Amino acid sequence: MSTIGILGGTGPAGQGVALRLAGAGYDVVLGSRDAQRAGSVAAGLSTRGTGSIGGADNVTAATCDVVVVATPWDSAIATVVAVRDHLEGKVVVSMVNALVREGRELVPLYPPRGSMAAQIQHALPNSTVVGAFHHLPASEMVDLDSGLDADVVIFSDDAAARDSVAEMVEAMPGLHAVIAGTMSLASAVEAFTAVCISINIRHKAHSYVKLAGLSH
Amino acid sequence: MSTIGILGGTGPAGQGVALRLAGAGYDVVLGSRDAQRAGSVAAGLSTRGTGSIGGADNVTAATCDVVVVATPWDSAIATVVAVRDHLEGKVVVSMVNALVREGRELVPLYPPRGSMAAQIQHALPNSTVVGAFHHLPASEMVDLDSGLDADVVIFSDDAAARDSVAEMVEAMPGLHAVIAGTMSLASAVEAFTAVCISINIRHKAHSYVKLAGLSH
Repeated sequence: MSTIGILGGTGPAGQGVALRLAGAGYDVVLGSRDAQRAGSVAAGLSTRGTGSIGGADNVTAATCDVVVVATPWDSAIATVVAVRDHLEGKVVVSMVNALVREGRELVPLYPPRGSMAAQIQHALPNSTVVGAFHHLPASEMVDLDSGLDADVVIFSDDAAARDSVAEMVEAMPGLHAVIAGTMSLASAVEAFTAVCISINIRHKAHSYVKLAGLSH
Repeated sequence: MSTIGILGGTGPAGQGVALRLAGAGYDVVLGSRDAQRAGSVAAGLSTRGTGSIGGADNVTAATCDVVVVATPWDSAIATVVAVRDHLEGKVVVSMVNALVREGRELVPLYPPRGSMAAQIQHALPNSTVVGAFHHLPASEMVDLDSGLDADVVIFSDDAAARDSVAEMVEAMPGLHAVIAGTMSLASAVEAFTAVCISINIRHKAHSYVKLAGLSH
């Protein structure tokens, strides 16, 4: 079974993905600039299922078979460029959203290439970028008893890479994969995260996207 | 009770909104460039509930208390500018998405002011624009027996106008209002329509957005 590295994996979003990957049986390496911190975060996570979660520096996480980028948007490019050689020929999953707080809401930023996924693809010309995990509320992701039953919208220009990430997502407890299409949809998927979070702030909720009427 | 005019209301999207407004008890005027066509489309709709649906030219539709813009994106500005005087001081609801077909998916376009709602607000400086009804599948909207149970994401810079549209939406069968926030979210809400439609094309479905975990 593939190993999964998560760059910037010690934040709430990375922890949530790691827990549910471990629940699906994957061995996960939480990467951080600070390997010691990653180790203690990983040690504090109570996994269920047959997968493990360890902590390491981002370089070690980047040596895994599949690598997820879970850093804040404004450090994503520097982080992936620093480990670019290890990412060559691999599927790199971007869950990065460029958002900024404006009063009581989060609003989307549009990077020069339209999306963070496109920025990352440009920085990693020899990797295959897939977008996924954008709209998930971290609090529900880290709580394996939250009853989460969310749809994960997936996009990539590479059909095989899309399918492989969809298979991974389908195995994760509480998540369903919905392939949307190509990188032409990246800005729309990423920006909608601002709407989801703004709704949750306004309504004091932890809602998430379901696409009603799709058969799983 | 307010009367509702729908500019460009004879298309599938406009018909769906009209039927569900009539179901909520509103009297609706479907507007079109061609009043005769609007009349025959309106006559062909089987309403339920106490509201009525009539057909007229766009100018007549614009004299209603609240006006919905349901034209294709590339005729929206010309349509509202032609009836601008009738829209002064009113709430104007934009359900317009700028999308273009690219292969087997629809992809979002970003108008120069970021969103069609912002373009319409700029064209109508003395009206109050609210965004709503973007993500709804027309086929499910026009079929009152489709079991539709969709969330309608609403945004505007005017809190009172947002609330009034939310109240209208809540009264419509099969729809729930979710206020997201300000016009800073307009591009993200509009562009996500491309994701919804692309998913439906790819999966041969008529899915729609539910925000699971929000109490209604």
